[in-house]
Amino acid sequence: MKIDGKPYRTIWELPGQVGVEVIDQTKLPHAFATVQLTSMDDAARAIRDMTIRGAPLIGATAAYGMAMALRDDASDEHLDRAHDLLLETRPTAVNLRWALKRICDAVRNRPRAERFDAAWREAAKIADEDVEVCRRIGMHGLGILREAYEKKSARGETGPLNVLTHCNAGWLACVDWGTALAPIYMAHDAGIPIHVWVDETRPRNQGASLTAFELGGHGVDHAIVVDNAGGHLMQHGKVDVCIVGTDRVTANGDVANKIGTYLKALAAHDNAVPFYVALPSSTIDWNMASGASIEIEERSAAEVTKMTGRLPDGTVATVDIAAPGSGAVNPGFDVTPARLVTAFVTERGVGSGRAGLMKLFPEESKAAKPGWLVGYDYGKAGAGYAFVLANSKEEIAKKLPSLIIFDQRPTNLLENYYEAIVNKLSFDIDHVPATWMKIGTEKPV
Amino acid sequence: MKIDGKPYRTIWELPGQVGVEVIDQTKLPHAFATVQLTSMDDAARAIRDMTIRGAPLIGATAAYGMAMALRDDASDEHLDRAHDLLLETRPTAVNLRWALKRICDAVRNRPRAERFDAAWREAAKIADEDVEVCRRIGMHGLGILREAYEKKSARGETGPLNVLTHCNAGWLACVDWGTALAPIYMAHDAGIPIHVWVDETRPRNQGASLTAFELGGHGVDHAIVVDNAGGHLMQHGKVDVCIVGTDRVTANGDVANKIGTYLKALAAHDNAVPFYVALPSSTIDWNMASGASIEIEERSAAEVTKMTGRLPDGTVATVDIAAPGSGAVNPGFDVTPARLVTAFVTERGVGSGRAGLMKLFPEESKAAKPGWLVGYDYGKAGAGYAFVLANSKEEIAKKLPSLIIFDQRPTNLLENYYEAIVNKLSFDIDHVPATWMKIGTEKPV
Repeated sequence: MKIDGKPYRTIWELPGQVGVEVIDQTKLPHAFATVQLTSMDDAARAIRDMTIRGAPLIGATAAYGMAMALRDDASDEHLDRAHDLLLETRPTAVNLRWALKRICDAVRNRPRAERFDAAWREAAKIADEDVEVCRRIGMHGLGILREAYEKKSARGETGPLNVLTHCNAGWLACVDWGTALAPIYMAHDAGIPIHVWVDETRPRNQGASLTAFELGGHGVDHAIVVDNAGGHLMQHGKVDVCIVGTDRVTANGDVANKIGTYLKALAAHDNAVPFYVALPSSTIDWNMASGASIEIEERSAAEVTKMTGRLPDGTVATVDIAAPGSGAVNPGFDVTPARLVTAFVTERGVGSGRAGLMKLFPEESKAAKPGWLVGYDYGKAGAGYAFVLANSKEEIAKKLPSLIIFDQRPTNLLENYYEAIVNKLSFDIDHVPATWMKIGTEKPV
Repeated sequence: MKIDGKPYRTIWELPGQVGVEVIDQTKLPHAFATVQLTSMDDAARAIRDMTIRGAPLIGATAAYGMAMALRDDASDEHLDRAHDLLLETRPTAVNLRWALKRICDAVRNRPRAERFDAAWREAAKIADEDVEVCRRIGMHGLGILREAYEKKSARGETGPLNVLTHCNAGWLACVDWGTALAPIYMAHDAGIPIHVWVDETRPRNQGASLTAFELGGHGVDHAIVVDNAGGHLMQHGKVDVCIVGTDRVTANGDVANKIGTYLKALAAHDNAVPFYVALPSSTIDWNMASGASIEIEERSAAEVTKMTGRLPDGTVATVDIAAPGSGAVNPGFDVTPARLVTAFVTERGVGSGRAGLMKLFPEESKAAKPGWLVGYDYGKAGAGYAFVLANSKEEIAKKLPSLIIFDQRPTNLLENYYEAIVNKLSFDIDHVPATWMKIGTEKPV
């Protein structure tokens, strides 16, 4: 995407020498600077000190770091050392492990003389593939935004298409395009009038700093709003579409993303605003039945009580904003229940709910272990049922507030419902070790 | 309430001289300081520069300011001048106008020699009445918190009662006790273990600064969370009760409050967490049928893009946190639909919905002009109806997302529903110039 009219990726190869250049994201949005990484140690440092961030970009940077390690010493021992050293830079990043493994697989069993070249080509391929996946997400999302704009115009409403996004799921987190922002860039480039509400995304302000910086740099009209404002904007018809990224989608379609995403999804649902989640399929965790199993990271209280920005003289400073002596609690992510998500936008197309994801990625979903399917007597007069997909009985209790309510019929024959679920959720019936439980009685039906 | 163990009000009379002392709220939470106000000009300046804030406290300060004006010159002309000057300090504050009128009514038709004394006594009465109203709100809210804690303990759950609040509806906005925080102080003082989740409340951070400062000063256990976190906390059973204040409640029970309140109410509803609104009855606008008619103030973008706090050396500084060149939009309040409010906590007791408010304040509600009562065909099979109270047809369209769904019955006889509404909402049937409209057809039923 562009910064001041000039196209950039977040990482690019240095011409005529072994090395890459990256945007120094620690200085954003207050200054734009780039850094050259010409050794494995440079790459490791850039990941560790967050010069670069975002799962796909971390993966690509680590891959180039591995290649540079092999330039210096192509032995198996050094390959293993480089792998371990780079893996330790950000131990929780799933893409990092995956990228390092791809480099190892590409060079193992090759003569040492060929290893650097093979690794470098593989690193470039990882970067290019990420761009392609994001481009495809963008193309599929563009279809949604175009249709939304055409419908809005057909209703006689003037003004641009208003899209709300949370956190930063843009090109700065990837190699180019981004996930949630890719459709927005494509719509803008295609001449669709678009305006983006950027949630500032406390506590780390990725919206006010990175998303606003990205959109401004590429010339996309936008306004920062506090995280509190989105519900009000939706109540007043000022949001046509919500689109966000995700850190993990579970097999039932629950979405883990930056803290606060759930609140926006609730407001979208309450105001009939469509709520889309954009993701590469690598983000889907087919082996986790539902979001109730996701461990949510508790982060530092200082992220809440302190804030960094520019002083009037342009220097960057951190101020303490809380009452002295007051502590803070800082959960990093939340889980948006599948029922609040209109559809997923992936590199293979758009799909709704678990069924939609399974149709888009049949090979992945077939290989996954299933969860429990549990019936639940819903409504005073037994006039409806709701169902929950869970890994364990403990999870069922946790999940009661976020049931998937899918049908209401004037009958209480559970068998009918069972069949309906199996069809609706595209469940492979032989594949389900399901125990039907009536919640409360704990007796199998 | 207490600060470092010493009891305070936000305003108190100076012993042995004509004047009052107030807490300088512009310095909070970074420093605690008080200011003496010994003339009308002092009082006007304190209101204008926000040395003091909060509708009830503004009212009390203005009343003392009027009294001090009459000490200097008790003529009718000076009375009018003082009234107009003080009224201009914060033109939108409803309590300010009301307090100034009370002083005028108390002194007009009295000899000049008696006017200062009468005004001073009335100002003291205004302050004391505010304390008493807040104390009563606190007592009624204490009952709710006590019951919630007892139920929690009876379920075998350990730990304190977890209460979430948004913005600052504490004693710093009033003369003492506060509205939403009054029940919390009373529960704490009564020995009920209580822990408060304090929404930081961007953009002005009244939670992180004022509410946290208040609670810390009085020794109430609390933690600041970003506004994004509340939904996640509720999903995980970490919030037992929500309680917030309000700037205006309309006749149907819609609640205008600090931006972001609506999002917390949605999350509370989604997770079956009770959501209470604490208010003095002076906040109820009986002449406004619903929240759709409330004009929402757009505030300065700088509140969003800049943040004030303490630098490491203790000096207070303002930093720019947004991407350079990015603008912001800053709605100050939002409206929480009545359907998301569990109950109102007032100085006369606790009541649910419009009916509850009408029962608590029959004399006020009788005097108010009614709105339209509109039937709406709800549900695919016509199995339910929803109703909306509105001032105009235009408002009905706006209100469709926030319908009051009150009943579902296996009949579609609108007459039955009409009777049911009239009973449920305690409507005076002769008092309703209602046109029943089927939404969509626009034909009277």
